[in-house]
Amino acid sequence: MSYLTHIASPTLLIDEQICRKNLQKMAEKAKRNGMKLVPHFKTAQSHVIGEWAKDYGIKEITVSSIKMAEYFCGHGWENIHIAFPFNPLEAKRLNRLAKNQSLSVQLINETTTQTLVDALENPVGFFIEIDAGYGRTGVHVSDFGKIEAILRTAKKSDKLKFRGFYLHAGHTYYEKDKEAVYDQTRAALGMLKAKYRSEYPKLVTRTGDTPGCAVMEDFGDIDEMGPGNFVFFDMMQVALGSCTREEVAVALAVPVVDIQKERGEILVHGGGVHLSKDYLPEPDGGKNFGEVVFLTETGWTIPKERSFLKSISQEHGLIKASSELLKSVKIGDVLGILPIHSCMTADCMESYLSIGGEVIDHAEGARQG
Amino acid sequence: MSYLTHIASPTLLIDEQICRKNLQKMAEKAKRNGMKLVPHFKTAQSHVIGEWAKDYGIKEITVSSIKMAEYFCGHGWENIHIAFPFNPLEAKRLNRLAKNQSLSVQLINETTTQTLVDALENPVGFFIEIDAGYGRTGVHVSDFGKIEAILRTAKKSDKLKFRGFYLHAGHTYYEKDKEAVYDQTRAALGMLKAKYRSEYPKLVTRTGDTPGCAVMEDFGDIDEMGPGNFVFFDMMQVALGSCTREEVAVALAVPVVDIQKERGEILVHGGGVHLSKDYLPEPDGGKNFGEVVFLTETGWTIPKERSFLKSISQEHGLIKASSELLKSVKIGDVLGILPIHSCMTADCMESYLSIGGEVIDHAEGARQG
Repeated sequence: MSYLTHIASPTLLIDEQICRKNLQKMAEKAKRNGMKLVPHFKTAQSHVIGEWAKDYGIKEITVSSIKMAEYFCGHGWENIHIAFPFNPLEAKRLNRLAKNQSLSVQLINETTTQTLVDALENPVGFFIEIDAGYGRTGVHVSDFGKIEAILRTAKKSDKLKFRGFYLHAGHTYYEKDKEAVYDQTRAALGMLKAKYRSEYPKLVTRTGDTPGCAVMEDFGDIDEMGPGNFVFFDMMQVALGSCTREEVAVALAVPVVDIQKERGEILVHGGGVHLSKDYLPEPDGGKNFGEVVFLTETGWTIPKERSFLKSISQEHGLIKASSELLKSVKIGDVLGILPIHSCMTADCMESYLSIGGEVIDHAEGARQG
Repeated sequence: MSYLTHIASPTLLIDEQICRKNLQKMAEKAKRNGMKLVPHFKTAQSHVIGEWAKDYGIKEITVSSIKMAEYFCGHGWENIHIAFPFNPLEAKRLNRLAKNQSLSVQLINETTTQTLVDALENPVGFFIEIDAGYGRTGVHVSDFGKIEAILRTAKKSDKLKFRGFYLHAGHTYYEKDKEAVYDQTRAALGMLKAKYRSEYPKLVTRTGDTPGCAVMEDFGDIDEMGPGNFVFFDMMQVALGSCTREEVAVALAVPVVDIQKERGEILVHGGGVHLSKDYLPEPDGGKNFGEVVFLTETGWTIPKERSFLKSISQEHGLIKASSELLKSVKIGDVLGILPIHSCMTADCMESYLSIGGEVIDHAEGARQG
């Protein structure tokens, strides 16, 4: 029996073959560049998908919260890196987790560093997060005073170990000239490594955005990469040129509940609580909340004529349908939607259905607790 | 011990007093207008908050999916209305649930009506959803052919009972002139009632948007109202004039992880997976993803000077901070954020912490299954 017979409500499908190809391709790229790939599992948040990653030599992962690190603890990861400016209120929780799992965190100020110096009884590594122009978070690349204050404070504890510098070049999402962003990233991390290597000979540098890691070939002397989204990709990455539609590994299955042929619209059960509200702008000023694919017994196919979600509310989605789609669609059919932002969609849905009909776990990363 | 001592990670706070006032005010308005209030519980999705609602005479609720109806089944509701164009793939599931719970659904086409005629062994009520200009979903108000086809098909089953007409005037969210939208709503529902009352003497009419129900006083001869968001309100409703900031009953507690005084920015743990990505436009072209409140032992207070989330990513939020806030804030503090769209935020967070320190349930409405 096909997986399709299991679907009566919005369901997040995953194509294992596509996902494995994405993992393999990035692992080969890292290897070709002499880099360690430490994928960001905020996207997949899954033990099963973690096991797929291990098949491509991946031994360490990145997560975005201590709760997510707890989910992955005890599953054979050599290290779990929490790529978020550490929240000092979670110091005791970190200390407890570090008893059973090798962990690293990110520090960007002296205050939180001191909190960890006071709280840690178990070893924890740390990266200093560097801001070289993105401006969201991190110590400015030229703020050596702050970098050294963090290093000096950390030295007061023999539990807090400096690992190196982390730089999330998040502006590859907005800047057309990714080469220029990467010039900046390579230069910033190269300079810091040269400056601090004599004191910390084992320090490494790491960068982590999917658009950069997918497109760039020259990573200079950066040691490690930690992209996340590439595991699934999505329509945002298609728009950025990081991947093709055929490389998107997840699709939300949505039941058709009404068809308005004269308006060229299809109403589906699938909205903001399933996909999140991320969108891409349309050339005419409208919005695109996800693109239609045709579900088949063995996965999905990309339609010749494009149809997309033009609006969504909490549970509803309204598709602007091509004439190709309108000709064939019936009430009670199930369509696929390639999401705009797969990390958010997976976090909304909290589990996957494989094309083989198996339910695949998700950490429920964002929930309270 | 204060509820504040429980908070180390993003946590959705609820102020019971504010929430009860919102419920009471709308219940009184419904009573004053001779209407039945059937609140939409897609917002709260909670048994505890359901019990609060019962204190104001509320006996029936509205939900947005069959999964949510299952959550509320067995909790003493006289009827649960599923306010979503019925998904024919869920017909058997509806039939099972209808064995133990009085239910009603919404129908907008003959195809799905026939599916229910074939599937139902237990009684289920239905409303015909009417589109009088919003354009998202429903039978156009003047499409009597379709209305009568649905009624004719439904008559083939003695299990499917016509209850009346439902109209979600969702364009009160976009149209400044809510009186004009309500003229249209009153006229459409009044006309349909007059036309079909002779054949269906018990038919009722229902409307359901929070901006309209909060602001309007003249509901004409509309029998029932089903707003949802008013239970909590949010910054979107403040912007629409439906409520004041003081009437918003939920706030996301977010730990402060970094402060950039010179840039006037505060980095918090709290992003798209907690708040959703709904935003309000700022006059300067920027975005507002939520507004800062000061947490106190007994709830929260509105600052004199406004601070707000100017950007969010999956887990991060960046606050544009007032000088008042910058003066007092420290790393490790916890701030409150009034959400832009409380329905989506509650759906992301999946539970509440009361000011009294109690954990309050949420249905996890959107998850698969």
